[in-house]
Amino acid sequence: MTERSGRFRVLPGAGLPNAERLKFFTDAVVAIALTLLILPLLESVSDAATHHLNTAQVLREHSAQLFSFALSFAVVANFWNVHHRVFEHVEHVTSALNVLNFAWMFNIVLLQFSTALVGSQPTSQLLLLYVGPMALCGLLMSAITLLITRSEAVRGSLPTFPPARVAASLVSSGLFVGVLLLVLVLPGVGFYSLLLMFLSAPLQRLIAGRLRHPAH
Amino acid sequence: MTERSGRFRVLPGAGLPNAERLKFFTDAVVAIALTLLILPLLESVSDAATHHLNTAQVLREHSAQLFSFALSFAVVANFWNVHHRVFEHVEHVTSALNVLNFAWMFNIVLLQFSTALVGSQPTSQLLLLYVGPMALCGLLMSAITLLITRSEAVRGSLPTFPPARVAASLVSSGLFVGVLLLVLVLPGVGFYSLLLMFLSAPLQRLIAGRLRHPAH
Amino acid sequence: MTERSGRFRVLPGAGLPNAERLKFFTDAVVAIALTLLILPLLESVSDAATHHLNTAQVLREHSAQLFSFALSFAVVANFWNVHHRVFEHVEHVTSALNVLNFAWMFNIVLLQFSTALVGSQPTSQLLLLYVGPMALCGLLMSAITLLITRSEAVRGSLPTFPPARVAASLVSSGLFVGVLLLVLVLPGVGFYSLLLMFLSAPLQRLIAGRLRHPAH
Amino acid sequence: MTERSGRFRVLPGAGLPNAERLKFFTDAVVAIALTLLILPLLESVSDAATHHLNTAQVLREHSAQLFSFALSFAVVANFWNVHHRVFEHVEHVTSALNVLNFAWMFNIVLLQFSTALVGSQPTSQLLLLYVGPMALCGLLMSAITLLITRSEAVRGSLPTFPPARVAASLVSSGLFVGVLLLVLVLPGVGFYSLLLMFLSAPLQRLIAGRLRHPAH
Repeated sequence: MTERSGRFRVLPGAGLPNAERLKFFTDAVVAIALTLLILPLLESVSDAATHHLNTAQVLREHSAQLFSFALSFAVVANFWNVHHRVFEHVEHVTSALNVLNFAWMFNIVLLQFSTALVGSQPTSQLLLLYVGPMALCGLLMSAITLLITRSEAVRGSLPTFPPARVAASLVSSGLFVGVLLLVLVLPGVGFYSLLLMFLSAPLQRLIAGRLRHPAH
Repeated sequence: MTERSGRFRVLPGAGLPNAERLKFFTDAVVAIALTLLILPLLESVSDAATHHLNTAQVLREHSAQLFSFALSFAVVANFWNVHHRVFEHVEHVTSALNVLNFAWMFNIVLLQFSTALVGSQPTSQLLLLYVGPMALCGLLMSAITLLITRSEAVRGSLPTFPPARVAASLVSSGLFVGVLLLVLVLPGVGFYSLLLMFLSAPLQRLIAGRLRHPAH
Repeated sequence: MTERSGRFRVLPGAGLPNAERLKFFTDAVVAIALTLLILPLLESVSDAATHHLNTAQVLREHSAQLFSFALSFAVVANFWNVHHRVFEHVEHVTSALNVLNFAWMFNIVLLQFSTALVGSQPTSQLLLLYVGPMALCGLLMSAITLLITRSEAVRGSLPTFPPARVAASLVSSGLFVGVLLLVLVLPGVGFYSLLLMFLSAPLQRLIAGRLRHPAH
Repeated sequence: MTERSGRFRVLPGAGLPNAERLKFFTDAVVAIALTLLILPLLESVSDAATHHLNTAQVLREHSAQLFSFALSFAVVANFWNVHHRVFEHVEHVTSALNVLNFAWMFNIVLLQFSTALVGSQPTSQLLLLYVGPMALCGLLMSAITLLITRSEAVRGSLPTFPPARVAASLVSSGLFVGVLLLVLVLPGVGFYSLLLMFLSAPLQRLIAGRLRHPAH
């Protein structure tokens, strides 16, 4: 997407829309989706009112919803952090990047539905609908990472990723796909499958170490 | 709206409020409207809970709502992208532009109601209420495009549109009006009428090509 | 709040927090409040679904809610525009300005409740609860305008208001108080009382003209 | 986190992500949480409609919800103001700061659930669930304040806190923990326990005075 005319080199990304407004828009969508995760809990309050429950009873009655709220909050917060770090390398928006980013947002918004489903029926039966959008978010973020690595027009004057970051992004999305496969093969593991996510940080540190000292 | 006094030329748009805060406000409204499209799905979850459905049953039961959510998400995402590109040429806000932009936001917000209606009753009977606000959004964006083309005060120091962009905006809004007319004349075509939207990109490429090579 | 020490004059507002983050936060709150005005319409959709209504029936059934949504949208849009113009003269935030601005936001958020009330029970009986927060918003914006006029620390390096803008702000809030009094004295006038608002623009032009040509 | 290599000193925070996007994201989450506090009132409107109440009856019927809405609005507004002032000293985001800030947002979002609970059942029985997230927000903000005081990497080129601000932050969070203890020991004091909060401003002034004139 860069052109040379004679001795002059056209700046990569020139003419493409600036990424600032897309980053801001994405932040707003994620912030809303993160906050709306509380909605299923809000809607269940009227029931609690009719029963005149005390603190312990409220917590017990809403435990599945509180658990799915906390878990989804952590997952979306983590996705936002990955998005934040990846988009620090984006200066211009191509239509491929735009489409991938909107598909990513679509799955972030869909997670609200999954969270409400899982909170109202906390069996492993609907776990697929919960892990599915997460795995898609992970895959889309990997695709975005690869796109940025390859497209000078997207990066503009910004530096490219260090190899460790590309690896980290692939590991992180790979883990969600792993959870998805685990749920498909062994539905009995239930929510424990999501514990795989906590391997993300140590795995990334391991890979970063290997990339820095390839002699090992 | 520009004045000359002696040899000096008053900068176009000087004295008018800067457009940044309006762009930001519009982004926030669209981001919220886009995210809230999930609400009808959230509200239907409590029913699913009482029936103890599995994944396939949930997807079947909510198929109309999932379809209208996905369709409206794509439409609003597309509208935001058009808004983004058009407002890159806006530096100052006149009251005419302000009123047109708020009318555009009004229809974007109204689309949530239409989406909920269509999702709860997926017959072509209410299709008019779904396509109506879309056609109005398209028409308002065309009016905004023409306003920017003609008003130096709005553009300020920014360049005007290339003719291809004006044509693209008119084609895009024309297509939604076309869908509206199709629904009015042939209500039987139902949601298939919205497939017309996918003509937008090829038509715009065709027009852009013609404008560049008028000899053809 | 400005101090002189010897021959040097401390810059007004130095040490006070910058206003940018408060402006942004206010924009976000107003954008959310504006978009959530659609919620009562969203919640009434499930009823429509059970009756299998056609387009005309849906519009008739929801006419009171659509009317109160459109009216409140226009009112909040107008309040935001006034806020936007007034805060162009704010560089720093004092605690008085901060408290007044949060009280203003409180009433903007409360308008959602009033709109839902009036939409579900469109008699003049609850009109007081609808016009009340509007009158308070108007009064608070007048107080903010006067505060900015008098406080150099708030304006910082920005110019003060032209007298016409101060007059415009007072007229605008005075009209809402007028509507409130009208509703209190003559409850029978109902929603027609809100037509007084449309006097705002011509009255402001009249005053601006007088201030420019005081000889008249 | 700062390194010296020979005579050169690496700029503190270099390489860490810039704090602007996190500040913006936090603002968006708080703005949404603040505005959604109105939701329990919105949802109760349909009941009012069926009873054809007048203004005084509506206010009486919803008094507990209006009270908890107003109280939570004031509390969240206050938390945002503290966040605003504390983060004026943050230039870069370390992962510790990131985690603490997301935990703070989690409790801000959770306050919506508590507000709805308390509004639907205004006894002191659920007061613990209302004061709990507030006390956690206070403690987390104190931890963030201490982190900023100690980490040059977080502050970057920005100045550190004056000691009075650190004291103010600790007092403010200490008061919420005090309310929590009071509610645990004397549940009978009910909502009056929250009046302790109003000691925050005079206590902070007292401490600021002491720190300035330690001779007293």
